[in-house]
Amino acid sequence: MDAISVIRAKRDRGELTDPQIDWVIDAYTRGEVADEQMSALAMAILLNGMTAREISRWTDAMIRSGERMDFSSLGVPTADKHSTGGVGDKITLPLAPLVAACGAAVPQLSGRGLGHTGGTLDKLESIPGWRALLSNDEMLAVLRDCGAVICAAGDGLAPADKKLYALRDVTGTVEAIPLIASSIMSKKIAEGTGALVLDVKVGSGAFMKNLDDARELARTMVGLGRSAGVATVALLTDMSTPLGLTAGNALEVRESLEVLAGGGPADVVELTLALAREMLAAAGVHGKDPADALRDGSAMDHWRRMITAQGGDVDAPLPVARETHVIPAPATGVLTTLDAYAVGVAAWRLGAGRARKEDPVQAGAGIELHAKPGATVTAGQPLLTLHTDTPERFPYAIEALHDAITVAPTGTTFTPAPIVLDRIA
Amino acid sequence: MDAISVIRAKRDRGELTDPQIDWVIDAYTRGEVADEQMSALAMAILLNGMTAREISRWTDAMIRSGERMDFSSLGVPTADKHSTGGVGDKITLPLAPLVAACGAAVPQLSGRGLGHTGGTLDKLESIPGWRALLSNDEMLAVLRDCGAVICAAGDGLAPADKKLYALRDVTGTVEAIPLIASSIMSKKIAEGTGALVLDVKVGSGAFMKNLDDARELARTMVGLGRSAGVATVALLTDMSTPLGLTAGNALEVRESLEVLAGGGPADVVELTLALAREMLAAAGVHGKDPADALRDGSAMDHWRRMITAQGGDVDAPLPVARETHVIPAPATGVLTTLDAYAVGVAAWRLGAGRARKEDPVQAGAGIELHAKPGATVTAGQPLLTLHTDTPERFPYAIEALHDAITVAPTGTTFTPAPIVLDRIA
Repeated sequence: MDAISVIRAKRDRGELTDPQIDWVIDAYTRGEVADEQMSALAMAILLNGMTAREISRWTDAMIRSGERMDFSSLGVPTADKHSTGGVGDKITLPLAPLVAACGAAVPQLSGRGLGHTGGTLDKLESIPGWRALLSNDEMLAVLRDCGAVICAAGDGLAPADKKLYALRDVTGTVEAIPLIASSIMSKKIAEGTGALVLDVKVGSGAFMKNLDDARELARTMVGLGRSAGVATVALLTDMSTPLGLTAGNALEVRESLEVLAGGGPADVVELTLALAREMLAAAGVHGKDPADALRDGSAMDHWRRMITAQGGDVDAPLPVARETHVIPAPATGVLTTLDAYAVGVAAWRLGAGRARKEDPVQAGAGIELHAKPGATVTAGQPLLTLHTDTPERFPYAIEALHDAITVAPTGTTFTPAPIVLDRIA
Repeated sequence: MDAISVIRAKRDRGELTDPQIDWVIDAYTRGEVADEQMSALAMAILLNGMTAREISRWTDAMIRSGERMDFSSLGVPTADKHSTGGVGDKITLPLAPLVAACGAAVPQLSGRGLGHTGGTLDKLESIPGWRALLSNDEMLAVLRDCGAVICAAGDGLAPADKKLYALRDVTGTVEAIPLIASSIMSKKIAEGTGALVLDVKVGSGAFMKNLDDARELARTMVGLGRSAGVATVALLTDMSTPLGLTAGNALEVRESLEVLAGGGPADVVELTLALAREMLAAAGVHGKDPADALRDGSAMDHWRRMITAQGGDVDAPLPVARETHVIPAPATGVLTTLDAYAVGVAAWRLGAGRARKEDPVQAGAGIELHAKPGATVTAGQPLLTLHTDTPERFPYAIEALHDAITVAPTGTTFTPAPIVLDRIA
């Protein structure tokens, strides 16, 4: 077995055999297959595709490259959620304690943001004292005591994926559905959850720009989960405009607390409840309505215990950016577009995100929205408030927002897209 | 400008702009574009192709990555030949002094063999004392004094190609016509020859297995040469069976000396004369028939001066392998196949070629043919003689020859393929 023959097989539109896939993933993890060989193979996969059997074997080989967690000792069903990434997507924060409050354990391994989409760990790290890095024993203890844990994935889970993900990022080979699906699912299956709900975002602020691609990715991932024995469901949800009224780190924690307190923006509440119901159903947990757990404070209780268990001070004030800048509505009428991608890039430029993995993020940076598409606005009223510690970045953020806002004449009929666009099970 | 955007453009079937091509070649040469990025781009080029404009700019950028030689101070027209590589292809050896004897200067930069096709420098190095490595000044002096020089290309010519060629070799991206054409032509144009004749081999022992691919490669290269001001012609020639009656290093030198002495196998003489006539015509040199230069000894005189000028002892005996093994004709009848690829692999396994760039070759190793396709053979008569210093390799060479020989019943009509299959000008 050698790298060139595997590359040639895929280059010439062949189907890779099980031994070829097992060998190339293992040899790449060990460093025997070089980066320049794997990137050529990744490009061939991107352009020539993979069969369902190949994707399944590839995923399995990546899982076998590392350890596999096991939560069966908990004695309760486990459920996890994965979002393909969006702007203002803070759903994990209220969702994990909410589902825990309803009786399923939520072992939520999360990531940091790169590019215009934020990362759950970056958001939680704006809470003074909170730690993302837990040992496997600490993670299990928080999960047992609090019903939910949100932390960084350890280095032992799917190391082949970790290496390949970093390589794809610099070689123009990110956008390959077989590689996206196997990357997400290898981590989630290795994590050992019993049920998994996938939130596949669609729209300008998402990785998948159209419904067809999103459906293909969702179907591929659902198939991979099921064949690995994980009860898997996917919701396709709108990402043409930011979720909720904030994009940033501390700003999104604040909004998540509003949801846990029984309030919060309607779209965030709707999506949180939809995902919670899917997670509970997939885990086989019945009896408690998640809407009640938001109303009766039990979700908030779980949040406070979970954050405290990871060193976070739940009563400390959240960081606030030093400077703000208001962008007014450009006209009077109906707001029809507030583009998710543009808002994401602007928040990123303000310091909420990072350009490289090693960059720090600003806890207080980001954007507040004062209206959502469908709202009637008056020329000059505040539409967006930009937050940053580095006001010299305002012009770059404002530039990103140049074509982000459309206001149609008063009286225009406009119906915003529904949050949940489709369900793949 | 960044590597990912260039990779994406080609990945998504776009046409690369001139600034994109100039930047990526320059940045790769400087090490700013990483190997894993260039290999992903090479795979995208292999699968999605390039327009004539892109190939031309790519070639030009590779030429500009290094120095460009200039032989105008010689005051005589220059002509060079390039073969895409075959088995038993020793044509450069008699051809360069022959063309010099007819009045054109031949600055022949050559390479070493890798895989089953031999390298001109490896063959010449079997002559005691001969040196492949010359400084630019030495090269010019030999060319001025002897009319021809065969030597290794200096590190200064097209360094981008040198780096990319090594990368393609390990990433399954060798077989891309735009990259093959630009690799060959960037070196030949940078070398500064006025006329160029391309010998594009077709058949089992060649890189191009069929006439259509060979024609496309030839047309691409002829176009590149012409647009760079080099008078370029291509002959498509047969490589279904080895050229001449020897494959190896010293064995091929011996056969070349036979040709220079006015003898030698008919196919080697025919191809040598055809290429010589094309080179002289392209260089605008008229008056002397190369067949006369073989008969009257002037080609041999030029050979002896050229080899001597590079330190070679023209009167020393050539190395001979320590052991031989004869393979007999398996049946009586008409020899219809003596497969070039199989003979090439067998000679390689006997020690005539190398598996890795740093491996040494055996000067005496190789294969002698005692009959060519079309000949009548008798069962048991010697058909091939294998030569090696390492007789433990005989079984591996014999294994490579397993399906190489076909003998049809006596009386079968069989016409061997012509040597020259087509001409692209």
